[in-house]
Amino acid sequence: MLLKKEKGQLIVLSGPSGVGKSTVIAELLGQRPDIYFSVSYTTRKPRVGEQNGVNYNFVSREEFERMIADDELLEHAEYVNNYYGTSMKAIQDRLDAGIDVLLDIEVQGAAKVKARCPKALFIFIIPPSFEELSRRLHNRNTDSEEVIQGRLSKARTEFKEIPNYDYLVINDKVANAVNEIESILTAAACKVENRSKILTQFT
Amino acid sequence: MLLKKEKGQLIVLSGPSGVGKSTVIAELLGQRPDIYFSVSYTTRKPRVGEQNGVNYNFVSREEFERMIADDELLEHAEYVNNYYGTSMKAIQDRLDAGIDVLLDIEVQGAAKVKARCPKALFIFIIPPSFEELSRRLHNRNTDSEEVIQGRLSKARTEFKEIPNYDYLVINDKVANAVNEIESILTAAACKVENRSKILTQFT
Repeated sequence: MLLKKEKGQLIVLSGPSGVGKSTVIAELLGQRPDIYFSVSYTTRKPRVGEQNGVNYNFVSREEFERMIADDELLEHAEYVNNYYGTSMKAIQDRLDAGIDVLLDIEVQGAAKVKARCPKALFIFIIPPSFEELSRRLHNRNTDSEEVIQGRLSKARTEFKEIPNYDYLVINDKVANAVNEIESILTAAACKVENRSKILTQFT
Repeated sequence: MLLKKEKGQLIVLSGPSGVGKSTVIAELLGQRPDIYFSVSYTTRKPRVGEQNGVNYNFVSREEFERMIADDELLEHAEYVNNYYGTSMKAIQDRLDAGIDVLLDIEVQGAAKVKARCPKALFIFIIPPSFEELSRRLHNRNTDSEEVIQGRLSKARTEFKEIPNYDYLVINDKVANAVNEIESILTAAACKVENRSKILTQFT
């Protein structure tokens, strides 16, 4: 493309556990290193292998509650007694600088972002079928049958929120899903409203 | 992509004379032979090299007026005493069969299509700059300076209609313009409303 993006695009990505979202995101960021992936804040303890600033920004409950009080979070939620949230400032600075920002958040978080940034791109990743989602969760060999059934049940609840999203990307193969997301981003950059700067020289 | 398109997408392409629209369309159709390019109807006489059914469907004034009377045209207009128009049936049949249909029409025709098919994708192709448009028209070596100035003046009028379009594609290089259009089509196919069929199995 000839032109630098006029302003960064906020991209919200959701999808059920087991759909392969992390792999899709890794592949997308490999092909589009210009995208800033927003690392969430959490009060839960790091698991083995997790790095601060990479998987999460790990902070104390005190610090997290201060961020809430100072309205520093674009969205936040509490699960199993731990807070999870997205810093507003880190995102806003990048968007202002014309950098696209990618958020990987759950459906409730996405709904909160939509309330504050209705112009963000809301993308939901689905598996090619429900059976395939179940197969992928079983193939991980990490969770008990009970945990897997819990994830599948949660997925059904999450699917109900799809009408709040703009785009549905099918992760049949990672390359296809990444291609669809890249097309969605390119198309968004081509929207007349996002090319107002070049337009001024013609009108 | 895994899924057959659930219904065809109507694509309306406009752009000023000299922007390179025909080259972009030829390249796009080469890469996407599944797209049906709608050939317009006209009452003007074929020019040397023009083929009936390829460049235009050449019909008599009588036949064209019958088509108008029978409401067979999606849009039509009269220029320099000749009619130009788009057959509704040829398009509708393809869309119903899930085939994407591409229309190459002027801004007035596009406005008429928008009134009847607001969900069509409206794409306007611009040159990287106004100077470049002038350069391309001069480089053709086919038109007098007066004709070129007329085309540039018409282009300025057409640019005023851009806010009625969804997407602005910059034809700096044909490959870039084609890539942008292909991304717009892929993104449209990913819209939640266009994937309602696969969605039914998840909800």
